[in-house]
Amino acid sequence: MATTMLHAPALQVAHWLNTPVPLTLESLRGRVVVLHAFQMLCPGCVSHGLPQAQRLHQLFPPEQLAVVGLHTVFEHHDVMGSRAALQAFVHEYRLDFPIGIDQPDGHQGVPLTMQALRLRGTPSLVVLDRQGRVRLHHFGAIDDLRLGALLGQLVGEPLPPAGDAPAAAGCDDQGCSLPVTA
Amino acid sequence: MATTMLHAPALQVAHWLNTPVPLTLESLRGRVVVLHAFQMLCPGCVSHGLPQAQRLHQLFPPEQLAVVGLHTVFEHHDVMGSRAALQAFVHEYRLDFPIGIDQPDGHQGVPLTMQALRLRGTPSLVVLDRQGRVRLHHFGAIDDLRLGALLGQLVGEPLPPAGDAPAAAGCDDQGCSLPVTA
Amino acid sequence: MATTMLHAPALQVAHWLNTPVPLTLESLRGRVVVLHAFQMLCPGCVSHGLPQAQRLHQLFPPEQLAVVGLHTVFEHHDVMGSRAALQAFVHEYRLDFPIGIDQPDGHQGVPLTMQALRLRGTPSLVVLDRQGRVRLHHFGAIDDLRLGALLGQLVGEPLPPAGDAPAAAGCDDQGCSLPVTA
Amino acid sequence: MATTMLHAPALQVAHWLNTPVPLTLESLRGRVVVLHAFQMLCPGCVSHGLPQAQRLHQLFPPEQLAVVGLHTVFEHHDVMGSRAALQAFVHEYRLDFPIGIDQPDGHQGVPLTMQALRLRGTPSLVVLDRQGRVRLHHFGAIDDLRLGALLGQLVGEPLPPAGDAPAAAGCDDQGCSLPVTA
Repeated sequence: MATTMLHAPALQVAHWLNTPVPLTLESLRGRVVVLHAFQMLCPGCVSHGLPQAQRLHQLFPPEQLAVVGLHTVFEHHDVMGSRAALQAFVHEYRLDFPIGIDQPDGHQGVPLTMQALRLRGTPSLVVLDRQGRVRLHHFGAIDDLRLGALLGQLVGEPLPPAGDAPAAAGCDDQGCSLPVTA
Repeated sequence: MATTMLHAPALQVAHWLNTPVPLTLESLRGRVVVLHAFQMLCPGCVSHGLPQAQRLHQLFPPEQLAVVGLHTVFEHHDVMGSRAALQAFVHEYRLDFPIGIDQPDGHQGVPLTMQALRLRGTPSLVVLDRQGRVRLHHFGAIDDLRLGALLGQLVGEPLPPAGDAPAAAGCDDQGCSLPVTA
Repeated sequence: MATTMLHAPALQVAHWLNTPVPLTLESLRGRVVVLHAFQMLCPGCVSHGLPQAQRLHQLFPPEQLAVVGLHTVFEHHDVMGSRAALQAFVHEYRLDFPIGIDQPDGHQGVPLTMQALRLRGTPSLVVLDRQGRVRLHHFGAIDDLRLGALLGQLVGEPLPPAGDAPAAAGCDDQGCSLPVTA
Repeated sequence: MATTMLHAPALQVAHWLNTPVPLTLESLRGRVVVLHAFQMLCPGCVSHGLPQAQRLHQLFPPEQLAVVGLHTVFEHHDVMGSRAALQAFVHEYRLDFPIGIDQPDGHQGVPLTMQALRLRGTPSLVVLDRQGRVRLHHFGAIDDLRLGALLGQLVGEPLPPAGDAPAAAGCDDQGCSLPVTA
């Protein structure tokens, strides 16, 4: 995880499941956001990441924390790439948090949000604080106790007064950084 | 599990993975056979049944015991029904025992071997002894210790002398029963 | 857990392990404190509670959170009641956070701190915030994710300005309650 | 495990728990015997070995297989060495198979049966077949599936006809070896 706190790029989603309206990071501002990137045929996602995301969704009040799944298919597109495939998977595994299908890049490669977030694979977790800044960027499994501690801390952080000017893209009180998006 | 020991009906398989030649129960006679029926989107299969089948495949010498997977798709046919879907799944989960795709019934319902074996769902285990008789017919998860004990016992059972007449279908020294096949 | 936040009674400890000086709750003020009450022959303590306490001790910086074990022997006193027994146990299980032996009551019954904290059995967790107020009073196993979330939140809570009058015993901004101590 | 199959030396036990009469290996001849050597403060025994032994005791019919615990205290004698300590432990962990306290050697060292069996530590498993021959001699954790398979096989092995001469001590159809006992 980089020490600089950057704002996450916008979600680029082809279809949404488990939500009546499309989600944007802006609409979630004020809440902690856990973005969980997965693939339905990724063993580590199925055995660890997704059950953890589902438990987070049950544990935290929705006004404090939003769990958002992102189906970032970067291999076996013919099998996992369809909306029907993901719907069947989500039904069988009883996942009920919002899940977006990351927008394909048109060449069967790495989908667009996955590229913009610079994820290294699945499962990946990106945690945004209440101001939308990236506070964790993690590839692989992460321990319940450590993740719980971070989220508990972020949920309790106060928001700055409403009148404050928003931080410029890539800049905050820690300094300025190159933008994350390509 | 019924107390009578019946012979299992023939496998009806559309495609085989992880084997250069199609398997038949006859060709496996003399070895204990563990038939593991699963679906790739079945949580209990993915978390328990398939890892157990893979460990059985590694534990027992192949001349003593054969693990055979059977992809018995009875729901979400559009997602799980293709050979490509199963190949991607088998690749990601690193399964290397022979797996057959149960023959669809032509009406998107219960596939043919699943019908003939009278399976109640997935995961299901059917264990055949060295003479091809059904010795376990189990739906759901089964404990490692109990399964290991049964298989160890079956592996050690002697075969009857070669000259013995084979048992009539549906009849053995326990009595006679209705045939399993429809 | 009661909704009122009370201050915990003082620790009454016969001997301390893993600390050069005896601990008091006053000396830990300013840090979150996790009191873990256990018995060395309590299965739930050995399989769940103590490994969780040890992981908490490793996860949080010591200036933020203190894990304190409390050996609250209320049965099998002849076996578990000696300092040597606890030392052998702590050595074999490689526990390295401070552990106090709760002061026996002189009649082989419930030891004194356990009485004062009104614990129902072992394992029990009592969590104090940075001001020493009881924020969790839990009997039995508790989930890593839930515990992590609470502790992360408490660690991030600001202390009131130094000049503030301390809350009266048993009273805080939630109301007044009977004192916890007998 | 050595490839030669030797007969196990006699048990030397100071006290027995969970059995009205002392056990001898001779009295168990005809059944498979699982000797489980443990210490009550040994983490691997408590988390893995003893629960496995308890499940074996429940799984196999008593006329087929006998689980026998052996408390082989070779360290922390003052804490674990008493009958009362073991009784409290056995009560709390709800173990109900016969358990013998290995006879101390009089110098607070390795107890006598542990010496005679040449155990390397705890947990250790020694498995005897129906003729009393050592078929597994294992230090550390062992997988349920592998152990189940071995025991299932041994339970199914036929006994030699009653008129056969017993194998000489240290000799069997595999050859002759030095005796195990010192």
